[in-house]
Amino acid sequence: MINKKKYAVIVAGGKGTRMGGTIPKQFLPLLGLPVLCHSIMAFAHSLKDVKIILVAPPDQMDSARTILKSYTGQLNITIVAGGETRFHSVQNGLKEVDGEGIVFIHDAVRPLVSYELIARCLEGAILHGSAIPAIPAIDSMRLMNPDGSSRPIDRNNLRIIQTPQTFRSDVILPAFNQAYDPSFTDEATVAEKYGAVVFLVEGDKNNIKITTPGDMIIADTLLKTSD
Amino acid sequence: MINKKKYAVIVAGGKGTRMGGTIPKQFLPLLGLPVLCHSIMAFAHSLKDVKIILVAPPDQMDSARTILKSYTGQLNITIVAGGETRFHSVQNGLKEVDGEGIVFIHDAVRPLVSYELIARCLEGAILHGSAIPAIPAIDSMRLMNPDGSSRPIDRNNLRIIQTPQTFRSDVILPAFNQAYDPSFTDEATVAEKYGAVVFLVEGDKNNIKITTPGDMIIADTLLKTSD
Repeated sequence: MINKKKYAVIVAGGKGTRMGGTIPKQFLPLLGLPVLCHSIMAFAHSLKDVKIILVAPPDQMDSARTILKSYTGQLNITIVAGGETRFHSVQNGLKEVDGEGIVFIHDAVRPLVSYELIARCLEGAILHGSAIPAIPAIDSMRLMNPDGSSRPIDRNNLRIIQTPQTFRSDVILPAFNQAYDPSFTDEATVAEKYGAVVFLVEGDKNNIKITTPGDMIIADTLLKTSD
Repeated sequence: MINKKKYAVIVAGGKGTRMGGTIPKQFLPLLGLPVLCHSIMAFAHSLKDVKIILVAPPDQMDSARTILKSYTGQLNITIVAGGETRFHSVQNGLKEVDGEGIVFIHDAVRPLVSYELIARCLEGAILHGSAIPAIPAIDSMRLMNPDGSSRPIDRNNLRIIQTPQTFRSDVILPAFNQAYDPSFTDEATVAEKYGAVVFLVEGDKNNIKITTPGDMIIADTLLKTSD
């Protein structure tokens, strides 16, 4: 089973407007390499014979192609266009999964994904059909009520969910044939709606999602100190 | 009302075992200044005539005194011993609130608290009786069930809670006269149990809680780039 084919769907579908600039955040350089290339290289280096599928914003396909050619020229990467929502972007990416195997679905803007985390997700998905990286919550949390008031929620029972959300292809491919539902906030919720039981594995605190300029600085520091 | 007395209870009660070392994390140096001194100086610089009350681990009272003398020698800081839990530590600190006013209760290990956040909390507490800094959740979240399974939770309704949790003294002092309850996970939950309605204000993503060595590196970077 460990020799089954592996697929990494790297989702860079977002426009990244929170960064304030015109360059989507997945294209910004981090230690000289665009963010999404860090994410791609992590999978290329961790998994033998992985098929990498990049989902790029429809209006950034040419930029994506140019960047991939410049920075990952020796790799064979399939590029597909993103859709209206995260669900539709991943759905487009999954059309390129052309056989049975293990499918990783990863945010392009999580460039610090480690070999150890990828290995844990692979093992979890092989054993349980799915592997969703999760870390404990450090801060207190509250849940907002519709009237604007809020109530505490026990953080001991909360888990922060990361990517790569990882699945056996026979679990995730049929799940993404469902009609879109607004409750689909990540791939785990799509799989669950189809009836799958989601299996959590230990995530990695350093596996941050870059959404602000400050996150770029933190990612830069974490990359420098992790080597 | 803005001229009312201000109190900052800085809670350094924890033993900080997660850092692995023998020095509690609040005493570790950040740009040459111990973490807790950054927190103290933020309040001393932001608020005129604030009374600062440091709650220190009972077995680290001497270290705390020495550090404060070396680094904040000109400031008049009251030091009290922490208790069994966060609730008991804060309860001990509140015994030094000797008049009506606004009370800030702040984690010593959040050294990046800004003037702007302190000002928002002050204003919120004056207007509403309480001001609890909160930021949106960026990642997907799941809630663990007792059987080990988990279910998604709508992150749009979740808020990550920070400190300084800030209150009018007539709200927080009687609340801390209640008997201890294990549901007291922060000061907001204590105030609510006493019948207060908690008011959330906009927190600050950079106002991180230092719990791991990696957090020290991130705090160092954020401090260097925020100046």
